[in-house]
Amino acid sequence: MSSKNKTQVLIAGKIYTLSGYESEEYLQKVATYINNKLAELKKMEGYNHLSADTKSILVDLNVADDYFKAKKQADNIEEELALKEKELYELKHELINVQIKLEAAEKSLSTLQLESTEQQKRIVKLETELQDLRKIEKEGAV
Amino acid sequence: MSSKNKTQVLIAGKIYTLSGYESEEYLQKVATYINNKLAELKKMEGYNHLSADTKSILVDLNVADDYFKAKKQADNIEEELALKEKELYELKHELINVQIKLEAAEKSLSTLQLESTEQQKRIVKLETELQDLRKIEKEGAV
Repeated sequence: MSSKNKTQVLIAGKIYTLSGYESEEYLQKVATYINNKLAELKKMEGYNHLSADTKSILVDLNVADDYFKAKKQADNIEEELALKEKELYELKHELINVQIKLEAAEKSLSTLQLESTEQQKRIVKLETELQDLRKIEKEGAV
Repeated sequence: MSSKNKTQVLIAGKIYTLSGYESEEYLQKVATYINNKLAELKKMEGYNHLSADTKSILVDLNVADDYFKAKKQADNIEEELALKEKELYELKHELINVQIKLEAAEKSLSTLQLESTEQQKRIVKLETELQDLRKIEKEGAV
């Protein structure tokens, strides 16, 4: 487990010393993000007339909104992932089935080729016998 | 495009009227989430001694942290999804290849079966001819 870091960040013009397990890089990223949110809100019409509490709540709401939208996106992609995994599972089974059929067909083909070769040899043998027998018969009849 | 709603939410003991495109349900969910964050932070040792600014920044940091973690999760799942899609693509191609081989093997099998049947008929014909010829020859020799 990593040790605790102390990082100084500048947020809304004040320096805060944060103590945590996250890296300095990460904490600076979070600080920058919050400062950007504040900068966006400051452009809002009437922002300066809001109470300190309301200004603070506005940042919270905006950041929380980003959080919920990121969470929703993660959930959506998880659903898509689950569907793809199901598709993958079914496809793998289909592939196995077709491979089994291919193996069986190739085996049958192999067996049949051997039989066919034997039959061809038999045909040649019979044709030769027939030829010889006809020759003998012809010579006998002369 | 949906119209703007006005929703009243209670955050940190104060009522705020929010105007936005989000549903009332969503805004209440966000408000509850922020209140829960505040409740968690209040349990922190020394929380009450912090300035209002610091307390406010703490909430921001916590919520922003949730946001970045949700975003990271979404990114991770997206990467997983991309890998699955690649796997799916490759598997589909493999399936097509095996199906093509199966079709070819079944076609060869079909052709070879016809040839084998023809060969078998030829064998029967030749054996019959041979048998007849031997019979004639035998009768002739008697």
